[in-house]
Amino acid sequence: MQKLAFIGFGVVGQGLAEILLEKKEILNKENGFEYSVVAVSDFTKGSALDNNGLDLEKLLELAKNGKISDYPGATTGLDALETIKKTNADVVIEVSYTDIKTAEPANSHFRAALERGKHLVTTNKGPTALFFREISDLAKANKAEFRYEGTVVAGTPVINLAEMCLAGNEISEIRGILNGTTNFILTNMEKGKSYKDALKEAQELGFAEADPTADVEGFDALAKVVILAKSVMGAEINPEDVDRTGITGISLDDVKKAADAGLRWKLIGKVKREGGAVKASVKPEKVALTDPLASVGGATNALTFETDLLGPVTIVGPGAGKKETGYSLLIDLLAINMKG
Amino acid sequence: MQKLAFIGFGVVGQGLAEILLEKKEILNKENGFEYSVVAVSDFTKGSALDNNGLDLEKLLELAKNGKISDYPGATTGLDALETIKKTNADVVIEVSYTDIKTAEPANSHFRAALERGKHLVTTNKGPTALFFREISDLAKANKAEFRYEGTVVAGTPVINLAEMCLAGNEISEIRGILNGTTNFILTNMEKGKSYKDALKEAQELGFAEADPTADVEGFDALAKVVILAKSVMGAEINPEDVDRTGITGISLDDVKKAADAGLRWKLIGKVKREGGAVKASVKPEKVALTDPLASVGGATNALTFETDLLGPVTIVGPGAGKKETGYSLLIDLLAINMKG
Repeated sequence: MQKLAFIGFGVVGQGLAEILLEKKEILNKENGFEYSVVAVSDFTKGSALDNNGLDLEKLLELAKNGKISDYPGATTGLDALETIKKTNADVVIEVSYTDIKTAEPANSHFRAALERGKHLVTTNKGPTALFFREISDLAKANKAEFRYEGTVVAGTPVINLAEMCLAGNEISEIRGILNGTTNFILTNMEKGKSYKDALKEAQELGFAEADPTADVEGFDALAKVVILAKSVMGAEINPEDVDRTGITGISLDDVKKAADAGLRWKLIGKVKREGGAVKASVKPEKVALTDPLASVGGATNALTFETDLLGPVTIVGPGAGKKETGYSLLIDLLAINMKG
Repeated sequence: MQKLAFIGFGVVGQGLAEILLEKKEILNKENGFEYSVVAVSDFTKGSALDNNGLDLEKLLELAKNGKISDYPGATTGLDALETIKKTNADVVIEVSYTDIKTAEPANSHFRAALERGKHLVTTNKGPTALFFREISDLAKANKAEFRYEGTVVAGTPVINLAEMCLAGNEISEIRGILNGTTNFILTNMEKGKSYKDALKEAQELGFAEADPTADVEGFDALAKVVILAKSVMGAEINPEDVDRTGITGISLDDVKKAADAGLRWKLIGKVKREGGAVKASVKPEKVALTDPLASVGGATNALTFETDLLGPVTIVGPGAGKKETGYSLLIDLLAINMKG
């Protein structure tokens, strides 16, 4: 029985909660997985803690009205750090907001959980990208698991794929489409839309923020590239080491010219071992139509791992979404369960 | 320390052996994996058994001349079943030849290993396709692992992907390109070659057998579809239940017409849940160029899993090769090691 504490209970946390409720019986039967939620603390929605277990359905209901603290009989009013200190949870699910510059307050949550020997499962890019090595070391020192599948391509397996299904391979390069918004825009430009119109449509559909800078200038993909470099390739790459160009310089004419030449513009995140060094970049590239990345359209993401034993292996799947990202946390919980 | 016995020591077994030698230190360091080979028995190359361990490098050398029985100081002259009975191996690696009609003698090897509580790791399609349920039950009853990644897409993770990285999902459909030879032929027909010339080239390159029936009539893909249906989807599909059509009826003209319509012919293996039933087929289909399967050219394979939480997830990788198939056995050994 895993005892779970949610730090942050927004879209992603609720996404996991809904899956946990919906699949409770089947997860027990097919995966031998049982859970109990013992604490939830959210910056805006309040908190509830009961080390004997909370009713997850009731928590979801209260969260919808932003009133987790109304949970009857629970300890309330605890902030994230107090919650981590007082909970008897085995696993802390850190899904608070991400700050890619300071990594706070999530990094403090990470440390507080791991220092207490609690496993940490997260979708939080900030601390994972910036302090990967330190967090991994802290986890190891405290015999806790640090799992972060959802920091890269939502629940599409890339971290777990590398760890469990490509183990034993030397990976010399990882390249792929790591940002759904820019891929959606580029796919629509191929259909004849201008950059401006394609961006507008992405914003209307909720794929792009009002300020789209993080996506279109490649900062979101950059954080993911850093996580892949550090985790899968064991490289010391920091954000400032990544050669980054966004898609704002690509015109409809560029897209047409590429198509005429049998090519397709994609924003490609890449980590590559070259001699002793590892180089990382996020840049628009013209890929051949025979490349598995070429057929990846819309908001879908994809990654190709260059391996010594299998050659290139590509995985294609969703890069965002409530259920899709919530699932990334579930697969990490199941991995902890499997390892006993 | 895993003690390994090889039943069969042809291309695939030697492929694994070479990887085990080459990666001995790194597998120990990075995956905590240590091994010792205690027995090898091959139908044509002879056998050697020493429960204190054999020198794998020497075994490979002797195998090259077909003289495993020349191993100095080892017990020799044992057939496969005698080897399984006498070895103290923890894991039997069954890579003898496959018979898709009777599954023998591999099925007897499978049973002999599992009945003794030895883990079974295999690339052998025959017994895996025909007797999946019985073998799984026997493994469970004897607390042994039955692992068969290499029966479907060589070392490209599909079985392990479903088990470890897509766990918790309900999979409603699996479809993909499961035969490299036919995909190579279809890809070359798109370049303007006739079926006859494309087949000839595949034969010259060693992709296709002198008698190409198993590939071009879809029997190879059929066995893989049956394994996916039984293992990933838990369905009772047998070879005779699969609706099968090969690629021999596709003309150069068909290929051209499809291309003009923005489509591409692929031999698609499919397992689909429909209401309470599961249907399986192997058939040429025209796929849209936006389908991740469309860009999979040459001898590469690919599978798309339709999942309830992630939507479609596609994996693309090699479907054959000495190293590539040898690796499928390694990842299964590592999975056993990880589960402790």
